[in-house]
Amino acid sequence: MGKSEYSVTNTAPQTKPQPSLDSLVNLVDADMKRVNQVIIDNMHSEVALIPQLASHLVAAGGKRMRPMLTLASARLCGYGDGPDAVDLAACVEFIHTATLLHDDVVDESQLRRGQASANALFGNEASVLVGDFLFARAFVVMVKTGSLRVLDILAQASAVIAEGEVLQLATANDMGTSEEAYLEVISAKTAALFGAASQIGAVIAKRSAEEEEALRLYGIYLGTAFQLIDDVLDYSAHQATLGKTVGDDFRDGKVTLPVIISFAKGDDDEKAFWRRCMEDQNFEDGDLDRAQTLIRKHDALTASMDRARDYGQMAIDTLTRFDDGPIKDSMIEAVEFCISRPY
Amino acid sequence: MGKSEYSVTNTAPQTKPQPSLDSLVNLVDADMKRVNQVIIDNMHSEVALIPQLASHLVAAGGKRMRPMLTLASARLCGYGDGPDAVDLAACVEFIHTATLLHDDVVDESQLRRGQASANALFGNEASVLVGDFLFARAFVVMVKTGSLRVLDILAQASAVIAEGEVLQLATANDMGTSEEAYLEVISAKTAALFGAASQIGAVIAKRSAEEEEALRLYGIYLGTAFQLIDDVLDYSAHQATLGKTVGDDFRDGKVTLPVIISFAKGDDDEKAFWRRCMEDQNFEDGDLDRAQTLIRKHDALTASMDRARDYGQMAIDTLTRFDDGPIKDSMIEAVEFCISRPY
Repeated sequence: MGKSEYSVTNTAPQTKPQPSLDSLVNLVDADMKRVNQVIIDNMHSEVALIPQLASHLVAAGGKRMRPMLTLASARLCGYGDGPDAVDLAACVEFIHTATLLHDDVVDESQLRRGQASANALFGNEASVLVGDFLFARAFVVMVKTGSLRVLDILAQASAVIAEGEVLQLATANDMGTSEEAYLEVISAKTAALFGAASQIGAVIAKRSAEEEEALRLYGIYLGTAFQLIDDVLDYSAHQATLGKTVGDDFRDGKVTLPVIISFAKGDDDEKAFWRRCMEDQNFEDGDLDRAQTLIRKHDALTASMDRARDYGQMAIDTLTRFDDGPIKDSMIEAVEFCISRPY
Repeated sequence: MGKSEYSVTNTAPQTKPQPSLDSLVNLVDADMKRVNQVIIDNMHSEVALIPQLASHLVAAGGKRMRPMLTLASARLCGYGDGPDAVDLAACVEFIHTATLLHDDVVDESQLRRGQASANALFGNEASVLVGDFLFARAFVVMVKTGSLRVLDILAQASAVIAEGEVLQLATANDMGTSEEAYLEVISAKTAALFGAASQIGAVIAKRSAEEEEALRLYGIYLGTAFQLIDDVLDYSAHQATLGKTVGDDFRDGKVTLPVIISFAKGDDDEKAFWRRCMEDQNFEDGDLDRAQTLIRKHDALTASMDRARDYGQMAIDTLTRFDDGPIKDSMIEAVEFCISRPY
């Protein structure tokens, strides 16, 4: 049975066009060009290795979801053409890039898989230090906007992200990880920055505390749905489409929702299989195939995606208090895209 | 020839008592207890590994030079009993601790030397992430003080520290490193935080730009002297007194001033020796002894210490504009201690 049968894209309803990020991308396109310029200006350093390594990441691209959330939220809240939305969107991307660099600091065994991650190309130390540099520069740029409230929100979010990453270390290789603990990890490591990115759009537009909170929750729920799907894709995606290796979480022993569900529904033999792979990290040929078979047997990807859809709907519901229009529409479609995305 | 003959303590004049940090420590003792409490409160997390790892470092102690500089500078500038000096001293220590954690992220070969550094005990990933957590928390606490100027100074300093650490990576294993490049590294990686720590004491006391700058320079010069001596101690200290391994810089291929001077004065045979050790990292038994012999032959430790004394005198000179009294005296003695310290 081929991997295509796991593909998330196939499960989307065929009656309406596949949701995409295009309308959001188009709406914030001009601002995102300014964000890129702020990013380039602020990753400059006399120390050549810093812009070299940083531009390796910037060139690698990515969806740029987080800075787009800041720009879209600011616009939804009626923020005008001031520089703060663009500068803060760049700060959010810097914080995200710094966490990516620090995530990539892995041990030798993981390096041997031959990923061309920044640490593989430049070494662990450089990845750590350039991450620190980008993180510090994010705060330098934030200070320029002069908003202590924004600084507080992004500093708090940065601390929560680090907590989430440490919690993920603590739950890795532990088949006793509960669904609740898993949700706590992704809420901290991923959703917190989505939430802060959205919230600060309302802050700079000087909107009410209720609107700030609504946009914070929009980001939190969207980020949770985003990470749930990310974890589904690790077992379901076409490797070429995903742009990273399928099965990374499995080999790293990350206990994600598809695994938690399959383990809970599995018999003793299946439980022993999961423990051998996830806890003992003792792998045999064909283990990833077997993991995928068990996950399908227990409908664990479907269950994870249902959970993602619930969070997606909650994200969309937070937007009811805001005026209808193309920005709100694009933020709703962004949620639908995150749930149905094949990459 | 025993190592004691290289000991820095032996070179101090015997006619006056050895300078110590005691008067500074005593003057800020009550405030430092409050700093410790702020540190403990803010390294708290529901994620147990974070306070565990952080307290491993806090318990390890250290001289706490940087937070004491903030407290002393604030007091020298007439800052009263407000909470900001204590809170910011804790921030400075958090930033320093985060950089220590990230410095400790080393490769396997260095781990094998069996140091009980945080990364050896808890792993590279945890060290990186807890460093990130402390760094983010530092900014959370800074925001509470409400001073954008302080946030700017410490964010800029944090970026400069990261630049200095990357520059150090770039100059490591390169015997072409000039004295100028070496001074640039230590100015960024060490002196920048000493400078910021001192400067913010003047900022919260609302003193003039000239006084701010004088205290910034006090910290910069003191930090430069401090690091020059640190690099001397790596070749001269008693291992038990230093509390870390003598020869670490040598084995890591860090091109510090004693090496630069010895290399410049060395003949072809000596230059080949330094290149084999520092650049090729190809070590033979007795290499550290030979390095120490060459360094002594060319009076390279004396020359480095003379340089440190110059910077120390410049630090002391910046204080002339401030009122005489026990605080100023203790800040002068702190400089003298840093230059003559055996650890």
